[in-house]
Amino acid sequence: MSKWHLPPDRFFDPDPAQRRVARRLYDTVADLPLICPHGHVDPRLLADEEATFGSPAELFIIPDHYVFRMLYSQGVPLAALGVPAGSGEPDHRKIWQTFAEHFYLFRGTPTGIWLAQELRDVFGIEEKLTGATAQAIYDELEEKLARPEFRPRALFARFRVEVLCTTDFATDTLEHHRAIRRSGWDGDVRPTFRPDDVIHLLRPGWRERIKRLGELTGIEVTSYRTFIRALEARRAFFREMGALATDSDGTVLTTLELSESEADGIIRRALRGRATEADAARFFGHMLLELARMSIEDGLVMQVHFGSFRNHNQPLFDRFGPDMGCDIPFRAEFTRNLRPLLNKYGNDPRLTLVVYTLDESTYTRELAPLAGHYPALKLGGPWWFHDSLNGMRRYFDRVIETAGLYNTVGFNDDTRAFPSIPARHDVWRRAGCNWLAGLVVRGVVDEEDATEMAFDLAYGLAKRTFLAKRQAIRVGKRRF
Amino acid sequence: MSKWHLPPDRFFDPDPAQRRVARRLYDTVADLPLICPHGHVDPRLLADEEATFGSPAELFIIPDHYVFRMLYSQGVPLAALGVPAGSGEPDHRKIWQTFAEHFYLFRGTPTGIWLAQELRDVFGIEEKLTGATAQAIYDELEEKLARPEFRPRALFARFRVEVLCTTDFATDTLEHHRAIRRSGWDGDVRPTFRPDDVIHLLRPGWRERIKRLGELTGIEVTSYRTFIRALEARRAFFREMGALATDSDGTVLTTLELSESEADGIIRRALRGRATEADAARFFGHMLLELARMSIEDGLVMQVHFGSFRNHNQPLFDRFGPDMGCDIPFRAEFTRNLRPLLNKYGNDPRLTLVVYTLDESTYTRELAPLAGHYPALKLGGPWWFHDSLNGMRRYFDRVIETAGLYNTVGFNDDTRAFPSIPARHDVWRRAGCNWLAGLVVRGVVDEEDATEMAFDLAYGLAKRTFLAKRQAIRVGKRRF
Amino acid sequence: MSKWHLPPDRFFDPDPAQRRVARRLYDTVADLPLICPHGHVDPRLLADEEATFGSPAELFIIPDHYVFRMLYSQGVPLAALGVPAGSGEPDHRKIWQTFAEHFYLFRGTPTGIWLAQELRDVFGIEEKLTGATAQAIYDELEEKLARPEFRPRALFARFRVEVLCTTDFATDTLEHHRAIRRSGWDGDVRPTFRPDDVIHLLRPGWRERIKRLGELTGIEVTSYRTFIRALEARRAFFREMGALATDSDGTVLTTLELSESEADGIIRRALRGRATEADAARFFGHMLLELARMSIEDGLVMQVHFGSFRNHNQPLFDRFGPDMGCDIPFRAEFTRNLRPLLNKYGNDPRLTLVVYTLDESTYTRELAPLAGHYPALKLGGPWWFHDSLNGMRRYFDRVIETAGLYNTVGFNDDTRAFPSIPARHDVWRRAGCNWLAGLVVRGVVDEEDATEMAFDLAYGLAKRTFLAKRQAIRVGKRRF
Repeated sequence: MSKWHLPPDRFFDPDPAQRRVARRLYDTVADLPLICPHGHVDPRLLADEEATFGSPAELFIIPDHYVFRMLYSQGVPLAALGVPAGSGEPDHRKIWQTFAEHFYLFRGTPTGIWLAQELRDVFGIEEKLTGATAQAIYDELEEKLARPEFRPRALFARFRVEVLCTTDFATDTLEHHRAIRRSGWDGDVRPTFRPDDVIHLLRPGWRERIKRLGELTGIEVTSYRTFIRALEARRAFFREMGALATDSDGTVLTTLELSESEADGIIRRALRGRATEADAARFFGHMLLELARMSIEDGLVMQVHFGSFRNHNQPLFDRFGPDMGCDIPFRAEFTRNLRPLLNKYGNDPRLTLVVYTLDESTYTRELAPLAGHYPALKLGGPWWFHDSLNGMRRYFDRVIETAGLYNTVGFNDDTRAFPSIPARHDVWRRAGCNWLAGLVVRGVVDEEDATEMAFDLAYGLAKRTFLAKRQAIRVGKRRF
Repeated sequence: MSKWHLPPDRFFDPDPAQRRVARRLYDTVADLPLICPHGHVDPRLLADEEATFGSPAELFIIPDHYVFRMLYSQGVPLAALGVPAGSGEPDHRKIWQTFAEHFYLFRGTPTGIWLAQELRDVFGIEEKLTGATAQAIYDELEEKLARPEFRPRALFARFRVEVLCTTDFATDTLEHHRAIRRSGWDGDVRPTFRPDDVIHLLRPGWRERIKRLGELTGIEVTSYRTFIRALEARRAFFREMGALATDSDGTVLTTLELSESEADGIIRRALRGRATEADAARFFGHMLLELARMSIEDGLVMQVHFGSFRNHNQPLFDRFGPDMGCDIPFRAEFTRNLRPLLNKYGNDPRLTLVVYTLDESTYTRELAPLAGHYPALKLGGPWWFHDSLNGMRRYFDRVIETAGLYNTVGFNDDTRAFPSIPARHDVWRRAGCNWLAGLVVRGVVDEEDATEMAFDLAYGLAKRTFLAKRQAIRVGKRRF
Repeated sequence: MSKWHLPPDRFFDPDPAQRRVARRLYDTVADLPLICPHGHVDPRLLADEEATFGSPAELFIIPDHYVFRMLYSQGVPLAALGVPAGSGEPDHRKIWQTFAEHFYLFRGTPTGIWLAQELRDVFGIEEKLTGATAQAIYDELEEKLARPEFRPRALFARFRVEVLCTTDFATDTLEHHRAIRRSGWDGDVRPTFRPDDVIHLLRPGWRERIKRLGELTGIEVTSYRTFIRALEARRAFFREMGALATDSDGTVLTTLELSESEADGIIRRALRGRATEADAARFFGHMLLELARMSIEDGLVMQVHFGSFRNHNQPLFDRFGPDMGCDIPFRAEFTRNLRPLLNKYGNDPRLTLVVYTLDESTYTRELAPLAGHYPALKLGGPWWFHDSLNGMRRYFDRVIETAGLYNTVGFNDDTRAFPSIPARHDVWRRAGCNWLAGLVVRGVVDEEDATEMAFDLAYGLAKRTFLAKRQAIRVGKRRF
């Protein structure tokens, strides 16, 4: 039986000179704490000391559309994988067996790397997962998942997570975050304010959510003014609950400024169920400016990500709903579309606007030049499909020469798969150190600078952006 | 006089560790048979045992727009190269001399690599082609081309071509394919069904071809129904003649579904010579859905390639016609444009839809995520201008992490230059093994997996996609 | 105190085999003369033997929007950097201190590389620039800048500049160029004809400039005919003053041919202050064809660059004017947009049309295939944001396989920072030799070819394109 192939110098270039430098740099950052600025871990897992991950299939397969999409693409029915949760194949051992027999599909993919590293380093599984080893590995995982040291809170500590930010809608009650705070546990878990649920006027259920927003804030939304006031009240609540940032998602990116009367007219139409697609698009573009204004006022970092066609596979969406692995990127444009926002607020250093993209052709052409000019704009790390060795390499190669390292914000795992978090950060740290080692052996930077840059990539940039805008950062003896 | 520079470890990275692994992997695949899923070799060459390639200029220069476009771009008149065939310079030695004097233009290009490898490995020419060596090399080539062992059928066997698929219009009679079959020769040559000639309503001569389609099938085309029936009849004939796949080309990609009455209205207008550009575009978009439906029914693999502005150079087209080296790519969009087709048929694992692109910005952004989700969709190999060392490297780096290797289909040489086929596949195999060796020395996959992946890239993926959808594959002792 | 990290083999790959070849190639080109086909050096600096560069802040910071934009992006106010010239912080030592304290922002950027190389190799500063070393370095620079051997003309000779072409509007008087010629100095400084000032009908002040054009040429512009005649007269004057080329810039690229009556109607409307945006766009597209025609007639090389949104930051532009580091690229399209021009003049080998782009996604998709076909079209070097190690690597990797090396034109520094010129060319030469060495060790070209290609990249291509279209080139013993 073969063992996992995870050599200690993995992901470094084979050239011995570069590898030596990469290793030295990596040794300085490998054990730094993890900052997770926004992601999708269910806070319920951490709200209760006794919470567990469930079966191996529930942990690794059923909720993870990165994983099951690949088997689906090769003709494995979703039902055979127990997807969506609670339907399909009831025998989790069978699901695991199917997964194991198709594990070769993940060769050369980031998912394959994360899974191997999780299984070996988190769960101590040394054998490669195949059809032949599937059941023995299931046994071992099942036994370990029942132990206290494999509960979410235990892993949180073991992973050295310094802060974990979830993603929460404006109308979320944050009850699990409350429970975490009340429990006296010292893990730092925070919400992120994602007002998509109330800002996208045509999303199903919008009026019910607006009503709920009124109940939660005590401000009945009947006009643009009351909408803004309710939103600001909700932000204030999120800040009280520890939020560091907001996050917004939109299919089509435009930013524009409406007059108050136009905005008021649109929201009143929406409240009567009469908003048009054009209304919704214009309102969203306007609200991005408003979110920037609010961020200047309350200090929350503003994050936006654009350019994914959600639920592209309509028949699958009709049967199973969202998050079935078929959100597909398309072309993005930032130079013209961000201009109204940047012209209004981009020169204000109190604003930190972090932009993520799925369209890498915008790295050199639009985002790096913009981030290399506007004081407010920072470029988010390689995101989603680009959270991979080659995605990171392209990011470093295309972004830094024009934007500079210090207009980026480090890494964001953005994951719902909690036990994969250390593997994801480890890939980023290794990729970053290898990139820097490449600069050192080519004489672009010296190792002294590279060592500082490695720290910044692994920890400092995220820390400064989200947690410590105006203070010095200390980790052990280092000061940032 | 200098010799060709074709070292045995060419195209591998210089790092000794990576090179050793690349060599080991390459040794396992270098001699595998060649699968050529669609290309433009003239079947006439193989229909007659006595057929020859003609003069060196007729073999290497006159028919190959890859070659003559480069000299043209540097101011060499097409007439000096005997282009188009049968016109211009009558002295093939003079053409060869001009070519040789400009051979330095191909430095660092795939054409330069293929030509060097062909001349050395197929024809035994050791000296580099220059103005000084041109005539001696011409002598040697002329002498060899006259020998039986350099006839097309002899090379077919020597090259270990397992199957060669040509490209043939719906109204082609496949007479040369018939002749090949009747001749008793054991070479496996098959047609590919390319119905562009009858589906693009505004291409010159469409009505004559529709009449011809009626004659060939015995189904007079007077309506949408009869058009579809005639097309299906023609597909059945191609299948009888061994076809494995279809191929479609279009400038603008859209897919959409028409009602039968709208489709019928369009084709009736076209039959009266009254179809508009919008009609033709909508009809083509609709026919892509119909071709998918037919492929589900008859099992032919469906191939599409989009995004080339054909005959961009109008004055040249007006004088000399098509294929003058001026088909120029432009921007492509798949996420929105393929959606109607994928929503209707993309979840059906009986369909294999292979998409080729000339717009590499769509690799990570659109095609890899789509291929990594829809069971029917596969991503074709790096095509046309990207059939090159860097094109392949970019393909591996951008596609596999998201799509996985098993949503790709291996290599397609797509060439009309028959003697270049082994060189093209060899470049692919070397590039693939070097990429895999890079993964091995970086600890992304182990050598056991890489060895299987090398086989898949070189042979297995193409074999399974086009020839053996549901059977096991054996090559020598290996089983796939 | 740390020293600059500029090892002799910098920018070469770490692999010892590749590095040895790169070094050998580099040694053959490192000292070749510099050809600067168009840039923005102020000719006043060279018009007077006694001219100096001013203070270190005036040389390195205040006029260079590459430099100050990076500090601005991190919240440093422009006023603290004395920007725009003559305003803000009056103490140049304080400006220098601020710059030095933020010098870490340039880690891994081309600006950082150029500055390090300038400071060490031009000015003999061995220590890295930091807050701690800032004042001592200022002292040393100030002292050196006062010496005769650091005056512009002395550096011109020391840098081995063979020819330096500036960029000058059609209505410029070229008085400094005249002064250079009259002075008897042997430096070869030439103007480049950039008629943007009179061709873009809606740019502020257009009517005044048209009047000026009439005065300068003695041809009053009252119609399309007189406009063309005045423009031709001005070109003739630039040619007398030594111009080798024209240059055109436009936000939106279209090329099209107007009838003379339409062109005449547009210009008459413009003269009455009534031209529309559509008029201006169509007129500019038409004038690109006219510029091509004129280039065929008078032999000036035609350069165009497109795709930058000038002065993106409106509030900054309103306060400070242009060139504040906020020209931001956006998507470009060449296949369709250049077609009218290429169809009319692209087959004429007397025309040399050099296209530069900021949208790298057009390299493989559009520009390389176009340059690999049309005799008139050449692809300019990696430009502006892409004048960097990775920008050059991407250029070589994406362009040459399809276009061939000989449809490119070498390097253009395009800078206003005169003392950075040798560093910029040195980066290009090192990057080029390293790329070629990569081809050699991979067996793509042999070292004999690579040596010629290195010469061509460093010198020959630019020489032939701009200076010696029809003659042989000799440098020392080499002949091109």
